[in-house]
Amino acid sequence: MTVLRSGNLQRDRCGVLTVEIEHVDVATLEMLEKQGVDCQPKASTIRIIQDKYLQKVHFSQHAIPLPEFMQIDDLEGAKRAGDLFGYPLMIKSKRLAYDGRGNAVAGSVGELSSAVNALGGYGRGLYVEKWAPFVKELAVVVARGRDNSIVCYPVVETIHKENICHIVKAPANVTWEIRKRATDVAYRAVSSLEGAGIFAVELFLTGDGQILLNEVAPRPHNSGHQTIESCYTSQFEQHLRAVVGLPLGDPSMKVPAAIMYNILGEDEGEPGFILAHQLIRRALGIPRATVHWYDKPEIRKQRKMGHVTIVGPSMSDVEQRLKSMLKEEGSDCQSAVTPHVGIIMGSDSDLPVMKDAAKILNMFDVPYEVKIVSAHRTPEMMFTYASSARERGIQIIIAGAGGAAHLPGMVAALTPLPVIGVPVRVSALDGLDSLLSIVQMPRGVPVATVAINNATNAGLLAIRMLGIQDADLLARMSQYQEDTRNGVLTKAEKLEKDGWESYLNP
Amino acid sequence: MTVLRSGNLQRDRCGVLTVEIEHVDVATLEMLEKQGVDCQPKASTIRIIQDKYLQKVHFSQHAIPLPEFMQIDDLEGAKRAGDLFGYPLMIKSKRLAYDGRGNAVAGSVGELSSAVNALGGYGRGLYVEKWAPFVKELAVVVARGRDNSIVCYPVVETIHKENICHIVKAPANVTWEIRKRATDVAYRAVSSLEGAGIFAVELFLTGDGQILLNEVAPRPHNSGHQTIESCYTSQFEQHLRAVVGLPLGDPSMKVPAAIMYNILGEDEGEPGFILAHQLIRRALGIPRATVHWYDKPEIRKQRKMGHVTIVGPSMSDVEQRLKSMLKEEGSDCQSAVTPHVGIIMGSDSDLPVMKDAAKILNMFDVPYEVKIVSAHRTPEMMFTYASSARERGIQIIIAGAGGAAHLPGMVAALTPLPVIGVPVRVSALDGLDSLLSIVQMPRGVPVATVAINNATNAGLLAIRMLGIQDADLLARMSQYQEDTRNGVLTKAEKLEKDGWESYLNP
Repeated sequence: MTVLRSGNLQRDRCGVLTVEIEHVDVATLEMLEKQGVDCQPKASTIRIIQDKYLQKVHFSQHAIPLPEFMQIDDLEGAKRAGDLFGYPLMIKSKRLAYDGRGNAVAGSVGELSSAVNALGGYGRGLYVEKWAPFVKELAVVVARGRDNSIVCYPVVETIHKENICHIVKAPANVTWEIRKRATDVAYRAVSSLEGAGIFAVELFLTGDGQILLNEVAPRPHNSGHQTIESCYTSQFEQHLRAVVGLPLGDPSMKVPAAIMYNILGEDEGEPGFILAHQLIRRALGIPRATVHWYDKPEIRKQRKMGHVTIVGPSMSDVEQRLKSMLKEEGSDCQSAVTPHVGIIMGSDSDLPVMKDAAKILNMFDVPYEVKIVSAHRTPEMMFTYASSARERGIQIIIAGAGGAAHLPGMVAALTPLPVIGVPVRVSALDGLDSLLSIVQMPRGVPVATVAINNATNAGLLAIRMLGIQDADLLARMSQYQEDTRNGVLTKAEKLEKDGWESYLNP
Repeated sequence: MTVLRSGNLQRDRCGVLTVEIEHVDVATLEMLEKQGVDCQPKASTIRIIQDKYLQKVHFSQHAIPLPEFMQIDDLEGAKRAGDLFGYPLMIKSKRLAYDGRGNAVAGSVGELSSAVNALGGYGRGLYVEKWAPFVKELAVVVARGRDNSIVCYPVVETIHKENICHIVKAPANVTWEIRKRATDVAYRAVSSLEGAGIFAVELFLTGDGQILLNEVAPRPHNSGHQTIESCYTSQFEQHLRAVVGLPLGDPSMKVPAAIMYNILGEDEGEPGFILAHQLIRRALGIPRATVHWYDKPEIRKQRKMGHVTIVGPSMSDVEQRLKSMLKEEGSDCQSAVTPHVGIIMGSDSDLPVMKDAAKILNMFDVPYEVKIVSAHRTPEMMFTYASSARERGIQIIIAGAGGAAHLPGMVAALTPLPVIGVPVRVSALDGLDSLLSIVQMPRGVPVATVAINNATNAGLLAIRMLGIQDADLLARMSQYQEDTRNGVLTKAEKLEKDGWESYLNP
């Protein structure tokens, strides 16, 4: 496989030719294809993509949703577009536009000329786009094999700063419905192009849940860098698999959450290197962070010099670590551990029972928090706690309550996390009231109920749940069971040896 | 950083010097150290390790458990050793021994001479080891930083074939107690050596649970290759971090299970390449497998030419994929999906209730199995099912039963997996008998109990549990809750619009 740097290729010495950037001489690619060189993706795809206006025309012909757009050739045309689409108006160069270069915004009709001039004038080849009122930018990396099989990576959120990709969060924190819609648009966009390889599809998510295509890159892309650490197959391996005709690898994530942070040049020359190296030094101290430094010879302001990927058990966990890497305020450094289990109870009178769950979590070294949250006396707090738990990195909630025990069920209704309910025995009915209030949930909202007053078992159940994906915890649970068994066997032996009478009266 | 290939190093051009193999000229290393070159690990460590006899002496002086051993200088000495240690007797070269080279076994006193001759005679420098009656070979990769901080990778099992590492399973399927013991021995062994870097500690596990040190390699090692895909920090990055003095990375696994399979030369020359390439082609079609081909110029029988790492949600899953890669009998290829959830019930009369759990798992595309396993009528089958579920790759068990409903609790007592209990209502007591039989478990053995007859909630609870580490499933659960909410809102709207009377009599 050869990366295109010059046109001097002999067909018999080149198995397949691919590109690492779409801004290449496409006429040369087409000539090579005619000579029999196998280009993946096809020159036709590069031709469509390297001209952003052509790209829009192509995708709109294939019924891919995208912001309205039109070519402009002079001020009159620009004004017409302004009348049609309103302001702010996005003006773009058709070609050689990336990382925000080739984009200019006119806030009003008076700003049209200066925006056009900033882009080099109408002769450059310009078009305008209706402003997309997006709430998030999403991206989907898609791989297509030579057999036209297609796999899509999980939808990510890209956060830009001054038009340059700054942070990528995987997976995007959007609903499943939005993820499906974004994946569908990306799939259809790539299906409309020719040739094999990785394609990065950049998308807008609007406030009303629409997905609009922004643009497509026909190659491994900044929005897929985190796949190196977070997915079973990185976008780079996948690109090679695709272009040489191997089966496509599994694109799914092997960790729950990942953040990619671009190391951008902050300053020219030596001072820039010093700043970047300070960042890298901090990143090397962050658990589960991986540093990539591209070793470019020069540093320039806003130039991509490298990136850091942080992976972890939840988005809130990796966000916390990113903050600590960036030394943001309110971020405690590495020592800050996100609690994985929330232990809550309706009243402090439940604490003597609920403490047993905490003891188990201590024994297994699982970080947790203990809080009083009452369904009846602090309903707002309960609402906030339950609906924000997942975002805070909580993975399991253990809720204890007595009597008309609504806390576990109400919390379960407000979170997608597993909720374990502990019926606490209060004055009447020996706890049967608590048990039935907790266990008899309607279809749709499960509470994992344990025995009355048995918070020990709630803690153990939480460990078993976490053990599903943590071989260490699972092994420790087996050991716990063996230790318990041995404890009973010791007693059995003593009874055998001493006889029941002296066992009871030692 | 420079990898030692020749002695021509200038101190000022070399930040730190490390080795990729311990069989180097240690006198040169020591000379370089005297000249001020920074060697990591220290020449003293390489000197100890490259002479296996010296290594044993060193570790026994540091109270590391290892098989008994003694130097032999002639046949008489060998016979004395045979009398002392018994047969089979392991005879080893002190130096230049790896991948089984330099080892010979004498089955009896009569075989001593031929074994010694096979190793090149007593002049070569030989010693004998008492045969270690091991049941498994384990290994622990340990990293030590320049500040003497130490981190240990999870204990793995290494499986050798003709003395060459063939397969590595991570983590090792041994009890937590054994893992702790193995890690402790590895930690102490590395602590006794000087210098920074990765150390691979090979261990024997004996039938009575003893851990004996076999040998230590002062470098990244075959038993750590799977860390590239399965751990947060690969052994190679970790070695660099260690020797240049950066903070050590997190050594823990980011996937539940991994297998490393060595691609050994099966044949000389072209036929060997063809066989290896056939294997690689199959490996490329196995989901979650990564191929590493070392591109060595020549292939030789038993030479390590590359390796394949397969990672996945459970050891049984990756074992299944390995089988399919090796085209072993009884292995169905990629289509074979390990069930993640086991739905079991005491009787087929429970099926009309329990089917609802299966429906939910279908909806969320989670693979499952449905079986009849009765605690009272097929106790042996229940025992086998529960105690083997984890090894078969089951992650959660949903058990339904009615009346004196013992199945969920008995199963929970026999597995470390989370067990969800569904009380099935039978003839008497409206299901309260089933509920109390399932939920009122003693301390130590939790059953996550749902409402009477509510297998839907059991399925949903299983999804929530799996969602702890699967961001996709969690997002789908949120979507499910939103859909349910919208379903109720639609009804509410209809009631609002139609009024209660026509709502009831449409």
